[in-house]
Amino acid sequence: MRLGYIGLGKMGKNMVLRLLENNIEVVAWNRSEEPLKEVAVAGAVVAKDIKDLVEKLPSPKIVWLMLPAGEVTDQYIDHVLEFLKEGDLLIDGANSFYKDTLRRAEKIKAKKVRFMDIGVSGGPGGARNGACLMIGGDNNDYLEIKELVKAASAPEAFGYFGPVGSGHFSKMIHNGIEYGMMEAIAEGAAILKTSDFELDLPEIFRVYNNRSVIESRLVEWTQQALSEDPDLKEISAKINSTGEGEWTIKTAKELGVDTPVIEDSFKVRQKSAEDKEDSANGFRNKVVSAMRGKFGQHEVKK
Amino acid sequence: MRLGYIGLGKMGKNMVLRLLENNIEVVAWNRSEEPLKEVAVAGAVVAKDIKDLVEKLPSPKIVWLMLPAGEVTDQYIDHVLEFLKEGDLLIDGANSFYKDTLRRAEKIKAKKVRFMDIGVSGGPGGARNGACLMIGGDNNDYLEIKELVKAASAPEAFGYFGPVGSGHFSKMIHNGIEYGMMEAIAEGAAILKTSDFELDLPEIFRVYNNRSVIESRLVEWTQQALSEDPDLKEISAKINSTGEGEWTIKTAKELGVDTPVIEDSFKVRQKSAEDKEDSANGFRNKVVSAMRGKFGQHEVKK
Repeated sequence: MRLGYIGLGKMGKNMVLRLLENNIEVVAWNRSEEPLKEVAVAGAVVAKDIKDLVEKLPSPKIVWLMLPAGEVTDQYIDHVLEFLKEGDLLIDGANSFYKDTLRRAEKIKAKKVRFMDIGVSGGPGGARNGACLMIGGDNNDYLEIKELVKAASAPEAFGYFGPVGSGHFSKMIHNGIEYGMMEAIAEGAAILKTSDFELDLPEIFRVYNNRSVIESRLVEWTQQALSEDPDLKEISAKINSTGEGEWTIKTAKELGVDTPVIEDSFKVRQKSAEDKEDSANGFRNKVVSAMRGKFGQHEVKK
Repeated sequence: MRLGYIGLGKMGKNMVLRLLENNIEVVAWNRSEEPLKEVAVAGAVVAKDIKDLVEKLPSPKIVWLMLPAGEVTDQYIDHVLEFLKEGDLLIDGANSFYKDTLRRAEKIKAKKVRFMDIGVSGGPGGARNGACLMIGGDNNDYLEIKELVKAASAPEAFGYFGPVGSGHFSKMIHNGIEYGMMEAIAEGAAILKTSDFELDLPEIFRVYNNRSVIESRLVEWTQQALSEDPDLKEISAKINSTGEGEWTIKTAKELGVDTPVIEDSFKVRQKSAEDKEDSANGFRNKVVSAMRGKFGQHEVKK
């Protein structure tokens, strides 16, 4: 199977390296050259531009977009559609808002190009070692790319969820849940830190992550971050966010579901710049930032 | 090592069965006879009453209390103290509020009896197959019972956290985090359920639990419950609680930590009886109840 891949950020580059290892041929393009060189060394064919990328693929052509959600993804969908023909297949693997995906699906369908949305979880580490994939689109298209999603994902870590939009929708909800879970862990950590018991937080989180009810990857990342820097001195108390939490809240309101915990976790992030670095709430925020740094390789230093 | 064990509820009975398998001799007592018969078959020595239990132990005597937190635990501490002597060791393995533990520690110390608090996580399944233990008390006492905590816990799933009170304190925070994580998962599940995509929730939660960022035991239990009953028809939309969430919130306020997510997850439980069984919020609450049923074997049917 030969795939065109556009966008070699920390997610895209790692996924391409994994695909190459798993016998998927990749024709890659990226705006900056550095990651292109890296995937070329690993065996990817480097395209000069989008036109060249499409030309280097057999028909029906399959192109995976892995770009920042929003305008950039829109621009490149338009650009790649100039060269795709009826029956070709375009995949958006970005963290796109599902309503954008539904809107784009109309436009792409009008050109008789097939379209799938795949939500990717697990961060750059997952992309490199086996991601978790949430797939929307036509079922026949899913069966056609099953070899590809198997190559990209950890064992059993993918699923076909329904028509186009359902992949990004499920990924959005995953991120909403993630917001709430992270904030809950951070609130607990801040209480432990502030108590008079002078507790050893890395040790407590090590135990929390060994057969307690809250055992989870997020608790494990917290433990790792606290082991490296128990006071999280280097980590910012201002928490960034990338949109999915806010979209989840908006969607919940439209559907009449009350989601106070996801809302609060988003509000804490919005107001996080107001919390002092050395306050209890500042430490709480640092714990969220530290997790983001661990799983997402997001920039979270002060 | 020979241990006295008082309280054979679903946690206590299972822990005793595990201890017996791991070559700890147990002298057991329980108010009702049924579980006593069961542990006797597995090799426990059955005591007639508390006096008999203490008499059947070598000195220094070690007694583990595993009773409902609050008054019952107070009553039995007083009762067993009638028979313990200087240098004996009393362990409270219940979900006791850490301030109760600190108060009891004073009384027990006055009798020159040693006292430890051990928070136990993992539910009855963990108690049977290897629990997660959070230990407070004197460090020398911890070293004396290390063989015992090793026998009760899953590999590496225990830790000594500091002076008496720190075990129950850390377990309380664990439960506060648990409240927030459960509510976040439930809110996400309710949005998925309510959306127009007609999503397969068991399949989505299966994927969520395979290398996504939110992979966790709680997501796994959600997946199990949804697989058995995708609409959670049999599960109550009224969520019960046992105190730890409320204590966590109270403690956070005393320490000046803002914990909106843990607070809201508690409020949702308090108000859960008002949500209609067949509403979106009702389904959200059912997801929390279903998790409680899975890990805690709590009664969560309608």
